[in-house]
Amino acid sequence: MFAIDALNNLLPRLRGQGKKVVAVAAAADAHVLESAARARELGIADFALFGDVGKIKDICAGLGVDHGLFELVQADTDACAASLAVSHVARGKASAIMKGLCETSTIIKAALDKEHGIRASRRLSHMAMFALPAEFYHKPLYVTDAAVNIAPDFELMKEIIENAVNAVKSLGLAEPKVALIAAKEKSDPKMPVTLEFDELTKLNEAGWLPGCSVRGPLALDCAVSLEAAKTKGLDGPVIGDADIIFCPDIEAGNVLYKSLTMFTKAAAGGVILGAKAPVILTSRSDSAGNKLLSIALGALIKGE
Amino acid sequence: MFAIDALNNLLPRLRGQGKKVVAVAAAADAHVLESAARARELGIADFALFGDVGKIKDICAGLGVDHGLFELVQADTDACAASLAVSHVARGKASAIMKGLCETSTIIKAALDKEHGIRASRRLSHMAMFALPAEFYHKPLYVTDAAVNIAPDFELMKEIIENAVNAVKSLGLAEPKVALIAAKEKSDPKMPVTLEFDELTKLNEAGWLPGCSVRGPLALDCAVSLEAAKTKGLDGPVIGDADIIFCPDIEAGNVLYKSLTMFTKAAAGGVILGAKAPVILTSRSDSAGNKLLSIALGALIKGE
Repeated sequence: MFAIDALNNLLPRLRGQGKKVVAVAAAADAHVLESAARARELGIADFALFGDVGKIKDICAGLGVDHGLFELVQADTDACAASLAVSHVARGKASAIMKGLCETSTIIKAALDKEHGIRASRRLSHMAMFALPAEFYHKPLYVTDAAVNIAPDFELMKEIIENAVNAVKSLGLAEPKVALIAAKEKSDPKMPVTLEFDELTKLNEAGWLPGCSVRGPLALDCAVSLEAAKTKGLDGPVIGDADIIFCPDIEAGNVLYKSLTMFTKAAAGGVILGAKAPVILTSRSDSAGNKLLSIALGALIKGE
Repeated sequence: MFAIDALNNLLPRLRGQGKKVVAVAAAADAHVLESAARARELGIADFALFGDVGKIKDICAGLGVDHGLFELVQADTDACAASLAVSHVARGKASAIMKGLCETSTIIKAALDKEHGIRASRRLSHMAMFALPAEFYHKPLYVTDAAVNIAPDFELMKEIIENAVNAVKSLGLAEPKVALIAAKEKSDPKMPVTLEFDELTKLNEAGWLPGCSVRGPLALDCAVSLEAAKTKGLDGPVIGDADIIFCPDIEAGNVLYKSLTMFTKAAAGGVILGAKAPVILTSRSDSAGNKLLSIALGALIKGE
């Protein structure tokens, strides 16, 4: 339900910018092909499918999907499918990559290939979008990084934040509000991450990243609830109104991501950012709505 | 609603073990006195109140609460109130301490005092209880450590787990299931915590902590959902059925705690474990039901 609401909010924007093409690596999978067919039907994107073409045709037949609606390109291995999908983007024929039935690392490797890849100036990072029921939060929440970067140092933190701010801007948000999440609001030398977050907040005030607000350290409650923040005497643009939740490491990011998917009815989508095109990640266990949401995110987000 | 359900599950056990006394440090606060009066009325515990007795009597009068129902002891400062409350427990006159209107650190300092404190053999740790709506989880979930220990090393991890296992056992659970939460299920030298969790799992198999199951590394979804675990081919007693969620550091623990309090309707209670008596933590912003739940936890959990 929430996935469909979240999707409906993105559709006008998608339809306003001309049909995008998504290049799917290792597409011979019923879940993947079903989502691609549905996304095409809804006008979210067109698809170029890389993989075992015979198998793709068979699966399409089983699903009652006309394979003629897709561009099909034979690739004998996952690595080959990933390279071909990446090169489709590099040649300007697609604006996003989608992971099919292969490892995320296979796609990342192809995307980062120095000669044939789609590297940009920043490193890659993961960003998830959550649309929570309105009683819990009043707008979409973007969480980074739950899946790619393990324990980012200061420079990598900056890149992850820049990736997320750029992505959220290409989704139509003029001035994204970034909360840097720690266990409390005061800088504390015993919690090194609070000092780094203090420094990032000052850098933002000094003009590091124009067109956004960055604030930390904040515990999650103060980032998403004015009421919680009030009991601690906090105010400012990010307080209780964060768009982007930056987690200090993969353990915190992943536990937040999983908590939102397991314990709430939030709609969720996920992409990898930082290359010249976003990489759409869906997993088998995602609901149909969540898969479409990830595809819509990937179709809307501009590469670097 | 969920707080009351969760409380109702604990009440028979509370009533079965004779009236407990809770010693409240810095009790001159309307929120604290209201919860104490309500908890007494429900038969959860009796209370000894340490603080500014004149003020306590005034606040009770304002609330329409008979101060004669409590034992009142004058203390001129927070530190003094904390010491007296701790010594009340040390002399066997109370079985739990409750934080009133003072810093948690003031109570911890008094509890850990080498001469007059209530130190036991292990270090202190925080444990929260969450009762989620049944559609999201089928039993209470205990999260540790969201508030006390910042980045525990291997030995401290063991102590935090032992504290939680003992506490949950004194709540009536015969064989607690402990999930060690990381970002994935495979050991990975790039994520040092996964190696430690692997080691803790092996230690448990070798008999380190009898009467419980310990399993990690696990991402949160595999700890609480059989369905999620199945897609990764996992099984075993902890999988999809965890009681205790052990987080690798305070950032992960705190973001999970805050996510559950902000984005779900879960009832929540919190205590500090590891001393000869539990320390009950409530905060002003807790709902009345959550405050009672924390008090009930503190009244039920046996000290070390």
